[in-house]
Amino acid sequence: MVIQRSATLASQVARELRQQLQDQFLAGGKLPSEPELALQLGVSRGTVRQAITLLEREGIVIRRQGAGTFANPHVLRVQSRAETASEIGDLIRRAGFAAAIQLLRVETITLDEHTAARLDVEPGSPALQVDKLFLADGVPAVFIEDFIPQAVICAPFDPSELQHPIYEFLETRCGQTIVHNLSELVPMTAGGELAKRLEMTPGEALLRFDEVGFNRENQPVMFSRLYHKDRFIRFTLLRKRQV
Amino acid sequence: MVIQRSATLASQVARELRQQLQDQFLAGGKLPSEPELALQLGVSRGTVRQAITLLEREGIVIRRQGAGTFANPHVLRVQSRAETASEIGDLIRRAGFAAAIQLLRVETITLDEHTAARLDVEPGSPALQVDKLFLADGVPAVFIEDFIPQAVICAPFDPSELQHPIYEFLETRCGQTIVHNLSELVPMTAGGELAKRLEMTPGEALLRFDEVGFNRENQPVMFSRLYHKDRFIRFTLLRKRQV
Repeated sequence: MVIQRSATLASQVARELRQQLQDQFLAGGKLPSEPELALQLGVSRGTVRQAITLLEREGIVIRRQGAGTFANPHVLRVQSRAETASEIGDLIRRAGFAAAIQLLRVETITLDEHTAARLDVEPGSPALQVDKLFLADGVPAVFIEDFIPQAVICAPFDPSELQHPIYEFLETRCGQTIVHNLSELVPMTAGGELAKRLEMTPGEALLRFDEVGFNRENQPVMFSRLYHKDRFIRFTLLRKRQV
Repeated sequence: MVIQRSATLASQVARELRQQLQDQFLAGGKLPSEPELALQLGVSRGTVRQAITLLEREGIVIRRQGAGTFANPHVLRVQSRAETASEIGDLIRRAGFAAAIQLLRVETITLDEHTAARLDVEPGSPALQVDKLFLADGVPAVFIEDFIPQAVICAPFDPSELQHPIYEFLETRCGQTIVHNLSELVPMTAGGELAKRLEMTPGEALLRFDEVGFNRENQPVMFSRLYHKDRFIRFTLLRKRQV
């Protein structure tokens, strides 16, 4: 019990420190010592140490033996980190554009074999399909297809609610919190309907994420295909060597 | 000093546990308790707890309040994790193919403005360019261009050494260890020389990583472009929500 609480507390402290780093350390610099941070944040040194271990794994701080902990400006400056499942609207705004959403489709469909397998349900099971287009300064930038098994939805809803972030719908109408997505990175070329929707030249390259969202119980609750136009959102990823 | 040592020890324990998970927990299951793991591995409970926090961040274990720590088979089964900078040969073998390397080019060039900026050196500085083709079952699968600033190279070498993994060259001839890469994910279509090299139909999509490798001092020491044919290596990424 203590362990779980301490892990959660460390995550909270990590979030607090992440914000401070983004606000004050974009140019780099040395962080206060762990005892100083513990005092400042009102937590134990052990918790601060755990939080810094998390931030070190994210790459936003670097520990140097005997010298202290330093901000990593290279990583702090990254705009769209691939390993964070951010709202697309936030990514578009962070890239310096005005964001808008068009809700294109809210419909009950039956799942094909492949999608059903990813969602751990029977092929042919009913699911809600939600298609959305995100615009950056009025130009199509990202197209998303979300699939939520009917069995996951536990409260009535109005289709207009799906204008809002899908994570909100999952919380309020399904009682589900997605904690992470497992995403396949699929390079592809635009064609047919998709090229029209994204206003792309047929044959132009784009990056698709085929992703399964998992809840706190580690069950798959949503399958999504996200089609990103490179021109608007280019993802950056920290790839660690296991040395 | 103690902090640094404990962080390193936690990483070692995490590596040990990662191996055990991959060997014995691919189908899921509950891990021994933290005191049991501490006893088994001959380290303190605090170190085990830190190591498990790291594995939890990687997504390969899940802590459930009051119930214990569980293996996450969805993540353990991923073949090519995008967030790990693995040797391409290893990825090809893991995908079930025989791997081979062709060394296509070892040459001193002058860096263009863009690449020089990524490497934090003056445009026009000399650098070693190394081009390699990786084959899967004899078919071109990944093409790589590596750029190492001349100033980083501190020992004479024979070009044939570049047949081996570039990380080895960086260790032995440059005294440099790359700890992580910051990679941009770029979808593109094959054309011209590249299509010929990778034996692709012009216009076919592929995924390029433009990446900068950083050493322990957080200095950029290598810029690389990796062109991956989707047919042979498809990367999977764990995307966390910050909840």
